[in-house]
Amino acid sequence: MSTIIRDPGEVAHWDEEVDVLVVGLGVAGAAAALEASGAGADTLVLERAGGGGGTSAMSGGVIYLGGGTALQKACGFEDSEEEMFKYLMASTGLAPDEKKIRLYCEGSVAHFDWLCDQGVPFKPTYYHGTSGEPPTDDGLVWSGAENAHPFNEIARPAPRGHVPEVEHQGGPLLMERLCAAVDASPARVAANHLCTALYQRSDGHVEGVAATAFGEERRIRARGGVILTTGGFVLNDDMLLKHAPLALRCGMRVAATGDDGSGIRLGVAAGGATIHMDSISISLPITQPWKLKRGILVNRQGQRFINEDTYYGRLGAAALLHNDGQAFLIVDDGVFEKPEYMEEVAGVGETPAELEKALALPAGSLQATLDLYNRHAEQGADPVFNKSPEYLEPLDRPPFGAFDCTTEKALYAVFTLGGLHTDCEGRVLDPEGDPISGLYAAGRSSSGIAVGGYSSGLSLGDGSFFGRRAGRSAIPG
Amino acid sequence: MSTIIRDPGEVAHWDEEVDVLVVGLGVAGAAAALEASGAGADTLVLERAGGGGGTSAMSGGVIYLGGGTALQKACGFEDSEEEMFKYLMASTGLAPDEKKIRLYCEGSVAHFDWLCDQGVPFKPTYYHGTSGEPPTDDGLVWSGAENAHPFNEIARPAPRGHVPEVEHQGGPLLMERLCAAVDASPARVAANHLCTALYQRSDGHVEGVAATAFGEERRIRARGGVILTTGGFVLNDDMLLKHAPLALRCGMRVAATGDDGSGIRLGVAAGGATIHMDSISISLPITQPWKLKRGILVNRQGQRFINEDTYYGRLGAAALLHNDGQAFLIVDDGVFEKPEYMEEVAGVGETPAELEKALALPAGSLQATLDLYNRHAEQGADPVFNKSPEYLEPLDRPPFGAFDCTTEKALYAVFTLGGLHTDCEGRVLDPEGDPISGLYAAGRSSSGIAVGGYSSGLSLGDGSFFGRRAGRSAIPG
Repeated sequence: MSTIIRDPGEVAHWDEEVDVLVVGLGVAGAAAALEASGAGADTLVLERAGGGGGTSAMSGGVIYLGGGTALQKACGFEDSEEEMFKYLMASTGLAPDEKKIRLYCEGSVAHFDWLCDQGVPFKPTYYHGTSGEPPTDDGLVWSGAENAHPFNEIARPAPRGHVPEVEHQGGPLLMERLCAAVDASPARVAANHLCTALYQRSDGHVEGVAATAFGEERRIRARGGVILTTGGFVLNDDMLLKHAPLALRCGMRVAATGDDGSGIRLGVAAGGATIHMDSISISLPITQPWKLKRGILVNRQGQRFINEDTYYGRLGAAALLHNDGQAFLIVDDGVFEKPEYMEEVAGVGETPAELEKALALPAGSLQATLDLYNRHAEQGADPVFNKSPEYLEPLDRPPFGAFDCTTEKALYAVFTLGGLHTDCEGRVLDPEGDPISGLYAAGRSSSGIAVGGYSSGLSLGDGSFFGRRAGRSAIPG
Repeated sequence: MSTIIRDPGEVAHWDEEVDVLVVGLGVAGAAAALEASGAGADTLVLERAGGGGGTSAMSGGVIYLGGGTALQKACGFEDSEEEMFKYLMASTGLAPDEKKIRLYCEGSVAHFDWLCDQGVPFKPTYYHGTSGEPPTDDGLVWSGAENAHPFNEIARPAPRGHVPEVEHQGGPLLMERLCAAVDASPARVAANHLCTALYQRSDGHVEGVAATAFGEERRIRARGGVILTTGGFVLNDDMLLKHAPLALRCGMRVAATGDDGSGIRLGVAAGGATIHMDSISISLPITQPWKLKRGILVNRQGQRFINEDTYYGRLGAAALLHNDGQAFLIVDDGVFEKPEYMEEVAGVGETPAELEKALALPAGSLQATLDLYNRHAEQGADPVFNKSPEYLEPLDRPPFGAFDCTTEKALYAVFTLGGLHTDCEGRVLDPEGDPISGLYAAGRSSSGIAVGGYSSGLSLGDGSFFGRRAGRSAIPG
């Protein structure tokens, strides 16, 4: 018998009744609450922690937006909905949700303005550093693989990482401002409330939740809908084993303590379908500093496996998902520079043969790879993986060295992308594609824009964007 | 509102009431029905097609069993539960279900005897051919990667493919005999009955089903339980997109028409959890004849990616999942032999350079791969992928040729492995791991022994084995 689905017929008295009940106060929950309460709905947010923020507040704060936002324009970059659409369709996985991506691109400019309206500051300056999270307070950054093969041939590149104005890590500021906006709104927040069950009628309608607060159970009815925005499941080892076991090999799980998949499990128990549950984002941030892009990544067979100048989330995925988490970044004396995030030197050698011995690679394998790479690099070409000419130079100046990029020694940062199947209004769908009445989800409790390929900022982006849409949908009609 | 879950409170009159209701008559359904009816339970099987058999009857009929079966002994092979267990734990995926595998190995000898008792004939002779399905009527065959690296170092190899005594394809005979056994049992079979919905009480208990037969709907109550044995979802494009999109690129879907995931969807709508939904079995049967194992498989980068002497299911998975379905089997004049299943010659050349040009591989890439391979092969070694010495010989006799093993040109045979999460008694579990009262599953509607790595015969094997267990569990207590 399920312990997390209950019969509302057994509730003699609801402790509270609201229009819209949001479960979890990360970026998706905040956006849902702001939208619902802004439209006049009596809105309550339950947060299991002592305060809002969740994983969003532990993130780099990058928000993937484009199509010509005010920030992009201020920084002098041209972008369009169509170019953004083409990039996202090509880069986010094999089976992207075209409707969601289309809406997201169409609404991106306005969504940026909405974030500004909530008090999130963005400095109108561009950071010309590596893709990912800028160490400065600049507002715009490259946050994906737009500039690398094959995407630079598919869509006109533009930087789309929008970062709140603060040095290093934008997530805390983003959530400080969004939580302040929620506090200033008519929505109420109940912290230290852990949602433990859904009340579901025999006709399938979700009527409310049970939550535990300070040792007591409270039953809360939602007239319009319950919105699950509890994050992903990267802290739930059992769920990872069942859906994405390779995530267990990553040393860093990007998550606040609440990312145990509780919302996904509630939705599944209510008959909701999950999709893309095997999809994970895996970052291997070895591209700081730029110079290291001139090195080559090889696997345990001494073979290259990707264009090394691409987004670090693609490097991590290629290394972990397709090369057993076994990778070495090979450099020569001309390219060597110690990156901030990589401590482990796996080996050095005066010759490639010495280095492959130090790395226990098959005899001759690294030498063969370097010979082929160097021969083409001399011509400014990489016909094998199409690395950009600006990062191509022969690696032939001894000594040779290798940074250890194996899962055992390097930083692999992981979080989950799969979740409840939702439509564009945030309604949780059953396996037939029909909505479960009264049940909504957004953020990483749901499957969003990225379903197998990532760019930094897509989770804060689609969480806030579709969180707002769920907030509107859940208002009683 | 879900269209496939209904409130039993609305049923004024059940058209029929039975103890155990089995949905689907493939190998798992037959096994469940035989076990339940054999124990005295009033048992009804609904089959959507005009007769039993399902995908099992379209298969090669290989059943993966071991630990010292009567057939293994008759053919002179030693095996043990422990060696079988070690092989299955190492080869079936990253997160195998240890309890299921342990039970399966412990019960394998007796399960073979049970199959014989049902009238399935096995000729006590061994076929020394390639792994997979024998073209002869021999009973025992290699059906996995037991003999190849790394498994030959993990567990003592033994052939475990048990094949009904008939030439070419054993599935039809297997199901003919099992269906005959069902007919001879007290269990009843209702053909042309498509199960369209489950009746589930507000306390979660599954009480019965709705089925459509000859244009009319019938409501059938199960006192003990409903057992879903409707097969996988490889014919459902929408489900493949959401869970295993690469399967859509395979030219051959191993399935009877019923494999549209209907049972999985019914279970999910009732609150059941699914696991390993991204897992698929992908066969690339290019190892007939043996001699071709002496060739090398290379990807679009001209790199090898696997020991070519392994099970064809591992070749297919490596090619499709990790190399974008781009593979070429490179041979020289000494190794060339036209295999039965491969028509497409992708290119020929007097030199490796000519061949890589014909295949549009990066200049120098195939040459580098062949140089390294040949250098080691001369020493009888393959330090890169550990192909067995018996298949190692330098490929240096022109002309050189390549068989086209891309998904576009070669036979990729696929079916799904993910499904409802069940315990060892076949009970469908909710996301908290609690059983859904009254609901059971077996066969490819459920996740079984193979959760990411395959050997031929595991589906007929675990379908029949755990189908029997589900049949016993569903008997009213």
